[in-house]
Amino acid sequence: MTTSPLALPFPALPDVAGVRIGTACAGYKAWTRGDVLLIEMAEGTAVAGVTTRSRCPSPEVELCRARLGGGRARALVVNAGNSNAFTGEAGRAAALAQGEAAARLLGCEAAAVFQASTGVIGVPLPVDKAVAGVTAAQAALGSADWLAATQAIGTTDTFAKAAVSHAMIDGRRVALVGIIKGSGMIAPDMATMLGFIFTDAAVAPALLQAMLEAANARSFSCITVDGDTSTSDTVLAFATGAGGGPVLREAGQPGADAFAAALADLCGQLARLVVRDGEGATTLVEVQVAGAVDDASAHRVAMSIANSPLVKTAIAGGDANWGRVVMAVGKAGEPAERDRLSIRFGHVLVAEAGAVVPGYDEAPVAAHLAGDEVLVSVDLGLGQGQARVWTCDLTHGYISINADYRS
Amino acid sequence: MTTSPLALPFPALPDVAGVRIGTACAGYKAWTRGDVLLIEMAEGTAVAGVTTRSRCPSPEVELCRARLGGGRARALVVNAGNSNAFTGEAGRAAALAQGEAAARLLGCEAAAVFQASTGVIGVPLPVDKAVAGVTAAQAALGSADWLAATQAIGTTDTFAKAAVSHAMIDGRRVALVGIIKGSGMIAPDMATMLGFIFTDAAVAPALLQAMLEAANARSFSCITVDGDTSTSDTVLAFATGAGGGPVLREAGQPGADAFAAALADLCGQLARLVVRDGEGATTLVEVQVAGAVDDASAHRVAMSIANSPLVKTAIAGGDANWGRVVMAVGKAGEPAERDRLSIRFGHVLVAEAGAVVPGYDEAPVAAHLAGDEVLVSVDLGLGQGQARVWTCDLTHGYISINADYRS
Repeated sequence: MTTSPLALPFPALPDVAGVRIGTACAGYKAWTRGDVLLIEMAEGTAVAGVTTRSRCPSPEVELCRARLGGGRARALVVNAGNSNAFTGEAGRAAALAQGEAAARLLGCEAAAVFQASTGVIGVPLPVDKAVAGVTAAQAALGSADWLAATQAIGTTDTFAKAAVSHAMIDGRRVALVGIIKGSGMIAPDMATMLGFIFTDAAVAPALLQAMLEAANARSFSCITVDGDTSTSDTVLAFATGAGGGPVLREAGQPGADAFAAALADLCGQLARLVVRDGEGATTLVEVQVAGAVDDASAHRVAMSIANSPLVKTAIAGGDANWGRVVMAVGKAGEPAERDRLSIRFGHVLVAEAGAVVPGYDEAPVAAHLAGDEVLVSVDLGLGQGQARVWTCDLTHGYISINADYRS
Repeated sequence: MTTSPLALPFPALPDVAGVRIGTACAGYKAWTRGDVLLIEMAEGTAVAGVTTRSRCPSPEVELCRARLGGGRARALVVNAGNSNAFTGEAGRAAALAQGEAAARLLGCEAAAVFQASTGVIGVPLPVDKAVAGVTAAQAALGSADWLAATQAIGTTDTFAKAAVSHAMIDGRRVALVGIIKGSGMIAPDMATMLGFIFTDAAVAPALLQAMLEAANARSFSCITVDGDTSTSDTVLAFATGAGGGPVLREAGQPGADAFAAALADLCGQLARLVVRDGEGATTLVEVQVAGAVDDASAHRVAMSIANSPLVKTAIAGGDANWGRVVMAVGKAGEPAERDRLSIRFGHVLVAEAGAVVPGYDEAPVAAHLAGDEVLVSVDLGLGQGQARVWTCDLTHGYISINADYRS
């Protein structure tokens, strides 16, 4: 797999106090790379999470949902190469067995083990490989770094995706590190692909959950590669508290705003990294919608544009075909009036009041479209609602990757 | 443009009493083919129509909607190569001028002229070419046949698409002839691309409208190529009454059921022809959903499958990747339970009760996928709701056609 032309280099990431990383090769596919990740976390670690809205979630997703109620985590286990989704009782039993093995190895409750699996749907996770894999990863705890962790959760990803942010809480600098995987089947719809966030800050589970949901609404829920939503989408945030300092319990507390902002920043970085690795992507596209009747309506119009194959192929071809943006606004099913609509590519006004602008010059627009980051902005002229989403172009690469993924 | 591998030969079509056809070349693009169609219809012709649900309709669509209220038509004018959509006052004035020119030439009211335009969005219809074109088409009335008519309304279509059906009314055999264009930007959503139906039967406008809406709901509204809905989608049905016989006024009247069935059959044929010419299509895909809570829910699940890029690329690759069907069911936002779901490719049961069937043999499924017509059927196991929709696969051809359409 060729590295995405939109790839960013793997960032320098700090250690997070209270986090130990181990990886191993369970061999879910015919490969020798790491495909099991085990992360052990300090006692008392708080956890929050958001998961797919798919009606057909994987057993790992169901286990995460059940265990999030406890608010505490000691371990994260991730398998790559097999999503274990739609695998019936056999898949559920395998997920339970792997979680119990991890709990036994770490001396914790199974309810404190959070699991995720990613890969082909419909093949039960092979329980022997899964247990042997997590056992080997436990033996390797402390020997792996963030890069190894990120590589061990990837599937069709063409580059390792991670990000860092910081916040000052009570005079201490806390770190937030996130790792993420995802390239196709991306339209998380209030949930996400697999993303894991770790911080040494001390945050109560309920506040961490509220902050993660708010960050998610403006990051993972605002990206789409192909409009397809995975059965396994999961983002978990872990706050070990091992960095010391006061426990954040309420939004109004000193440091809480700073932490929420750092978390939102981190989620935004991670979400855009997924789009940068969109299958076949050659252009990162930001779609801004303003002037909608409310923010939710703006979001749906933005997603209609961002998911339109005709808009995405036009951008792939460097074609300033703004008529396709009109089409995508028109089909969104949201309040819109042709004669109030204006459209910009980059910062160039292309159309307003129901028609192309007088003396429209396509040259600066074509120059903008020739770059690898494109901005499409639409003003509906109706109200104050706005939204911002990210997608990528639709290219031959997407077809090549997906017309024969399993072979 | 290479002819679609799914193309059907142009059928033998009867003349329809009360219909005269003329075509001309207005030269909307750099071509010499016919691009203006004028059809003159007998006095008293009834008309019915359905149009796009886009919030950004073309002026021609708005004129059709306004004029449908009268229930009577004398002429149809179609331009190909320029959709005249999103062109503001200039576009509206051009459409009005062309309609008035046709009315003058035919000696009828402008309100009895129905117009449609298809092609690039955002460029006002050049009024001089439009008036000269319809004038030349009027001079040619009677000289063109159905094939010439169909060719004159095409844009990216790779073959001429038309169909015929018949009904017995009061011992007379009436003919219904339909012509259609469309290849991309196809997801009509209760409306359709450009399709025109002509019959010599006598049908009151209100009944014709009701029958067309019913037929539309199971044909044009059940197809998708790319999930993109045009600003210009229009289907009009014209009943000249020139074949003689009683006027159909009510659903219960003798012959009304036969006519409705013939109309539904014709619309189904035309709709599937559009999918057969889907941009880049190499496989015609029928998606059947049963066991939904109601028919509307079944339709949305079926469309979620039919619009999924991952399902469509899997079919393009001949890959029996039923996990992507699970994904598309899961993301539809409709009631579905993983453990009640069953999936078939062709007539082979692949998965049921939340998992792959025991001893699943992929060979017969792969053989079915190697054909050029594929059936995907899903039973949700919840209720009696069902739906049937048609789509095509998503291939490199789609990207090639759309990444640089305007050049």
